[in-house]
Amino acid sequence: MKKISLAIHGGAGTILKSEMSDTMEKKYLAGLKDALKQGYNHLKSGGSAIEAAQLAVCSLEDNSLFNAGKGSVFSSNGTHQMDACIMEGEKLNAGAVCGVSGIKNPITLARLVMDKSEHVLLSSKGAEEFGKLMKCKTEPADYFYDEFRFKQWDRIKGSDQFQLDHSSKKSDKFGTVGAVALDSNGNLAAATSTGGMTNKKYDRIGDSPIVGAGTYANNKTCAVSCTGSGEYFIRGVVAYDVSCLMEMKNYSLQQACEEVIQNRIKKIGGDGGLIAVDKKGNISMPFNTEGMYRASKDYLGNENIEIY
Amino acid sequence: MKKISLAIHGGAGTILKSEMSDTMEKKYLAGLKDALKQGYNHLKSGGSAIEAAQLAVCSLEDNSLFNAGKGSVFSSNGTHQMDACIMEGEKLNAGAVCGVSGIKNPITLARLVMDKSEHVLLSSKGAEEFGKLMKCKTEPADYFYDEFRFKQWDRIKGSDQFQLDHSSKKSDKFGTVGAVALDSNGNLAAATSTGGMTNKKYDRIGDSPIVGAGTYANNKTCAVSCTGSGEYFIRGVVAYDVSCLMEMKNYSLQQACEEVIQNRIKKIGGDGGLIAVDKKGNISMPFNTEGMYRASKDYLGNENIEIY
Repeated sequence: MKKISLAIHGGAGTILKSEMSDTMEKKYLAGLKDALKQGYNHLKSGGSAIEAAQLAVCSLEDNSLFNAGKGSVFSSNGTHQMDACIMEGEKLNAGAVCGVSGIKNPITLARLVMDKSEHVLLSSKGAEEFGKLMKCKTEPADYFYDEFRFKQWDRIKGSDQFQLDHSSKKSDKFGTVGAVALDSNGNLAAATSTGGMTNKKYDRIGDSPIVGAGTYANNKTCAVSCTGSGEYFIRGVVAYDVSCLMEMKNYSLQQACEEVIQNRIKKIGGDGGLIAVDKKGNISMPFNTEGMYRASKDYLGNENIEIY
Repeated sequence: MKKISLAIHGGAGTILKSEMSDTMEKKYLAGLKDALKQGYNHLKSGGSAIEAAQLAVCSLEDNSLFNAGKGSVFSSNGTHQMDACIMEGEKLNAGAVCGVSGIKNPITLARLVMDKSEHVLLSSKGAEEFGKLMKCKTEPADYFYDEFRFKQWDRIKGSDQFQLDHSSKKSDKFGTVGAVALDSNGNLAAATSTGGMTNKKYDRIGDSPIVGAGTYANNKTCAVSCTGSGEYFIRGVVAYDVSCLMEMKNYSLQQACEEVIQNRIKKIGGDGGLIAVDKKGNISMPFNTEGMYRASKDYLGNENIEIY
């Protein structure tokens, strides 16, 4: 039996069952199930890991519950500035965009950067210009409007509150979606997409679009997509750290993921989690926060959808 | 005797003695010597590694011979879009900016991001806005104007040539400056700054401002600043790769640097080099191109300034 595997996440953070209504919980679980299905069915029919990861992330981007694509949070200037990165593990090709607005699926634009340009990372207006040239689908501002997100921003806009008051928006910080996949040819891929932080300023870029920090894939080791306090994940080079522990210290996927999330990143103050899959189809989804929206399905068909 | 060490680079690439005039060679060597002196004197008087690395990079940024700060190449739109990153190895703090225009010393802005913001990476207009708030020194467009750089760009502007014809501007691609330092307190630091690629489009970002790719420092292992084909250095997570080989496989600085530059990065097609210093004061400056502008001075006072 071909060892296919898929794992996805919809962000980690202060997600407490006591603060979640049954209706919302059902919506989140259904959103994760949908995305998982789209990616897994592609793998099952012999499709590539990179395409499966992209399909799953597109599904999460199209769902306004998650902070990416349609559900992106508001920046300090009232727009949506989105980041995404995709990487494949066979030849270590990667593509990424940061600070883009109006792009329906930033992960698709990242894939185009990987496939159709000589570059890895394009930013802001330039990335949008490249998207236009590639006929990447755009949407007007109201497509990205969501009342809940607007209220989140409206409460703190015009202030520096995102900098001063961690607790009130801790959960916002971790809004990211991602997918990691192993296909029937033994290829690994990882994809991550985010709308960033509510009320973010200064065109801040987090870990999501950074190869090695928020996203990494290598057929020799694993595929990783992170969600967490981006600045710490950049400084910890988290996604590549997992891969290095496997390659250089012969850690298992599980050991490497636990070591990075429960020890190495915590030591410098980082909160969050990650999803990872290795070349044998093993899946690991550790987090050091109260919860992480996550789901996975392995080659035996074992499905797992959880929040807390 | 306190083990202080400093190494700097001014970029790697197709630098051939046969194509270099004596006058130009002297200018390059003098520029490297100046920068080395500024950083080393600071270390010698008990100053910090981070300050020494920043001082050396500022000196190279102020020299129009090198592609960073004043000597930055022209982007496709006729402006200068600069990237920089700085990191210290004690607490793994880092700051970086990408796509900034009009900032006299991008490395100083990166330092301000590290010291005065909660972020690691700020981009374009937002980074400039933060710089303004921090009273970071700016210069008008003509400060960055250099006839040689303008002619480089003028030959290919309006074309996609940077994408189609590697050989004609191979050396442009590698224009970067950097410094790595060990201070008398045993702290390491790394700094990198660049004007990017001539005629670059789409707000492309290379490896220089990316923690783990172009720049990395960790007191447990080493400080690294890279110069090379940025896209490959991002995919290879080069700077952190050196650190991981030391931490996880007990490689010496020399072994780790050689393995990464002569083997691992070459395997995926990457050209370039790096400078690195470890906690014992050892220095390594490998490159897989024809030349790399480089200089170093160790705790014994041994000075080394070379090009080819």
